[in-house]
Amino acid sequence: MNTVLDDENPDFVIYLGDVITANNILIANASLYWDQAISPTKSRGIPWASVFGNHDDALFEWPMEWFSAPGIPRLICPEANSTHSEACSFRGTHRLELMKHEIDHNALSFSKNGPKELWPSVSNYVLQVSSSDGPKSPVVYLYFLDSGGGSYPEVISTAQADWFRHKSDQINPDLRVPELIFWHIPSRAYKKVAPRFGIHRPCVGLINKEGVAAQKAELGIMKLLTKRPSVKAIFVGHNHGLDWCCPNEKLWLCFARHTGYGGYGDWARGARILEITQKPFSVKSWIRMEDNVVHSRVVLSP
Amino acid sequence: MNTVLDDENPDFVIYLGDVITANNILIANASLYWDQAISPTKSRGIPWASVFGNHDDALFEWPMEWFSAPGIPRLICPEANSTHSEACSFRGTHRLELMKHEIDHNALSFSKNGPKELWPSVSNYVLQVSSSDGPKSPVVYLYFLDSGGGSYPEVISTAQADWFRHKSDQINPDLRVPELIFWHIPSRAYKKVAPRFGIHRPCVGLINKEGVAAQKAELGIMKLLTKRPSVKAIFVGHNHGLDWCCPNEKLWLCFARHTGYGGYGDWARGARILEITQKPFSVKSWIRMEDNVVHSRVVLSP
Repeated sequence: MNTVLDDENPDFVIYLGDVITANNILIANASLYWDQAISPTKSRGIPWASVFGNHDDALFEWPMEWFSAPGIPRLICPEANSTHSEACSFRGTHRLELMKHEIDHNALSFSKNGPKELWPSVSNYVLQVSSSDGPKSPVVYLYFLDSGGGSYPEVISTAQADWFRHKSDQINPDLRVPELIFWHIPSRAYKKVAPRFGIHRPCVGLINKEGVAAQKAELGIMKLLTKRPSVKAIFVGHNHGLDWCCPNEKLWLCFARHTGYGGYGDWARGARILEITQKPFSVKSWIRMEDNVVHSRVVLSP
Repeated sequence: MNTVLDDENPDFVIYLGDVITANNILIANASLYWDQAISPTKSRGIPWASVFGNHDDALFEWPMEWFSAPGIPRLICPEANSTHSEACSFRGTHRLELMKHEIDHNALSFSKNGPKELWPSVSNYVLQVSSSDGPKSPVVYLYFLDSGGGSYPEVISTAQADWFRHKSDQINPDLRVPELIFWHIPSRAYKKVAPRFGIHRPCVGLINKEGVAAQKAELGIMKLLTKRPSVKAIFVGHNHGLDWCCPNEKLWLCFARHTGYGGYGDWARGARILEITQKPFSVKSWIRMEDNVVHSRVVLSP
């Protein structure tokens, strides 16, 4: 992450989920690892935003070894209060706690919890990228959605789709401002456009080493995005062995590139870069590798 | 249950776990079903004791249908208190809550939570069956152990074995009083003695229709019980298609018989009966079926 940030010197960083692997972080201390993961960006004074993946939080699982000697570790209870007995049991760190920690401790973080009514999905929000002419003049909207996984099923709910519809109608009713979408787990549409046997036009990318591991259901968000001409591209992570962009009608479906050293696979690390220009509007993308090499240049808009 | 209770008119009833199937009871209301399950015993004024099975409590699992319209049911939070955010999330009914409810609401219940240091295993306790000569004169000790499952792994922990060792040394140091043991999931020793192709001597029983579904590990309790001559028999449930008793050295390993109408399998319902006499001491057992038939008579002690 340090190398790529030094090479590209970006204005903004997006963490696309699976920032940490908290499946086995049983006690609520995962925030420490989260802080480490964002430190390369933070230490350079670069602002950022994050969404959740399927590894960032998870339900508690009892380790079998706790049932043999030396037994179950002592549990520190917040207070002896019978009406909150569940506060005194082992559990993983919740999405909401991770997000609250990130926001509370980082002035540079643009992450948001999103509307409470979308719980248990947490990282649903929109950021406006403003023109140099002034903050009232939006150049592009960046939408972030929580695609689930970990502590709840891997889906983007109907409620999230409804939220996107209302929000986008409200802030961009005439579809004048281009929109880019970010979440972690590819939707089922990615399976449809996935290249077979290498990567060939119109797809652009370098690795195509595994099947698309898509969300468990398609509950409406893709239908909305596909028929909304202002939406230019969706960016997901999740599959470490995939880094392609493929068009699905007028919408680009892109994978990022596995950047950190956590998680499965030993494909070389890199990061997807987006370059947004205002006049004329364009979105260009490429992948910057840890060893400086740049590949997979693609124009996503206009 | 009503039929068997009327036929046998027992002095005491033991619920051997899987009293309810709470895997999908997502909100904390499983106690209502528990009350229904024990009502045949309660309504006859018969005292009882219970242990937990693997279906009585379980971790919360998000139903997929909550993510499409009409969405996630409104969650009633005990109070808006940020330090207890986990008190306001969906969850199943915990073992401890089920047990507390049973004990608090039933004067006839002899169930106990057991020592707190054995948590998350809950139903670990011993009952003394007293002589007609007086309450100070024990005829037999009934030990109840929580064999896990549901909200935690299917094991009897080293800590539980240690508890049994200390307790039995304390109340029965000279091994003078016979002991009977009750838990839900068969230990691995049951696999060793299981009859093949029917049921033949020295085993006694009527159905042998499936493999023994044993605990996930053997962490010491069986070693203790096997070399303790005062222990006469272990009784388990779990396998609805098994109702045999087989000797393992000098200790009898018995299945009960599937009694209630919950759970898998359509083998005819019945209940294992124990008849304990004081002078001379003996433990006899048989299975009483729903249609009155008695079978599988066996002398378990002396």
